[in-house]
Amino acid sequence: MILQGKLSFETRGRGTLSITAAIREQVRLSGVTTGLCHVFLQHTSASLILCENADPDVRSDLDRYMTRLVTDGDPLFDHTDEGPDDMSAHIRTILCGHDLTLPVTDGQCALGIWQGVYLWEHRSAGHRRNLAITVSGE
Amino acid sequence: MILQGKLSFETRGRGTLSITAAIREQVRLSGVTTGLCHVFLQHTSASLILCENADPDVRSDLDRYMTRLVTDGDPLFDHTDEGPDDMSAHIRTILCGHDLTLPVTDGQCALGIWQGVYLWEHRSAGHRRNLAITVSGE
Amino acid sequence: MILQGKLSFETRGRGTLSITAAIREQVRLSGVTTGLCHVFLQHTSASLILCENADPDVRSDLDRYMTRLVTDGDPLFDHTDEGPDDMSAHIRTILCGHDLTLPVTDGQCALGIWQGVYLWEHRSAGHRRNLAITVSGE
Repeated sequence: MILQGKLSFETRGRGTLSITAAIREQVRLSGVTTGLCHVFLQHTSASLILCENADPDVRSDLDRYMTRLVTDGDPLFDHTDEGPDDMSAHIRTILCGHDLTLPVTDGQCALGIWQGVYLWEHRSAGHRRNLAITVSGE
Repeated sequence: MILQGKLSFETRGRGTLSITAAIREQVRLSGVTTGLCHVFLQHTSASLILCENADPDVRSDLDRYMTRLVTDGDPLFDHTDEGPDDMSAHIRTILCGHDLTLPVTDGQCALGIWQGVYLWEHRSAGHRRNLAITVSGE
Repeated sequence: MILQGKLSFETRGRGTLSITAAIREQVRLSGVTTGLCHVFLQHTSASLILCENADPDVRSDLDRYMTRLVTDGDPLFDHTDEGPDDMSAHIRTILCGHDLTLPVTDGQCALGIWQGVYLWEHRSAGHRRNLAITVSGE
């Protein structure tokens, strides 16, 4: 049993957007009891991550850490046509990932109690971000 | 054919714990001949990684590298209530990952000859870490 | 329905090699219409990544960024027997990943328009790199 769907989200520039509820709903709708849910972001300048879901400071600390680690407009970069945040966004995506595979148990996403699913926009401007969701199992 | 189970490990603080044998055993017990084994850590301050399995220096170099890259108690962090190693542990988890998908071939984990599976505790103190394992295939 | 195969590539030292066409072909040959394609690198010093596929500067910027972030011959490293680029290659692999899970839709890899699949050699010298490919679905 395999079900595939799409979701789109509008981001508002650099920062994280909680999508845990939307992913949990896709799993419920699939009817899969035991299996896996794969969530795939079809972009190269945003990430999908699991992150601590209780204190919003975790996500702002994380974003500021990555902004310092991968500097916008780094003079190292030759790929600059789309602005100082473009090449840094590509690197952030490769370091932090673009997809998630989540266990499905008893018909639900078997996340840990502190794990939330976040779409993380790496560009300064907002973008429409498309996700392909595949739920498989029994 | 899909089988799901759980494993728990007690860590002893920051550092790596080899769990290759335990994962290989779960694959054998599943009876799956050709497929995939997904191992998922239900936490936001520890990682699951594949790492070189021959020289223990690789894992200690890796851990010291990450300790330098993501500094405990970095003044950048606002999320400090749980100690100086907590926010750094969340960032290490996002950079290094929390799950693995391994091919199953001829009833066995098809790891490369130098690939070992490690549970990597990022917190200073030991913790009980829970894993959800899903083996699927034929 | 699950199909598993192998691919090998000869790299020419540090840098990226586009393997999008080879992966797309494996998906087509599998006959799977809806599902997932898992591509797994059986090594600890090279990566599989999705990266922007239009401007080659993105990949050269990325490689130079990682060369600066994870310094060859860093005096921190004890694991030095195989040369100054070996321990840095292991760390690059852990930070950037060793596998990809791609959605299969209408019999094709459902990559975003700017996403290309790259094998990224982290060692200075060329190596033969083996991949296990598992396509599952209906």
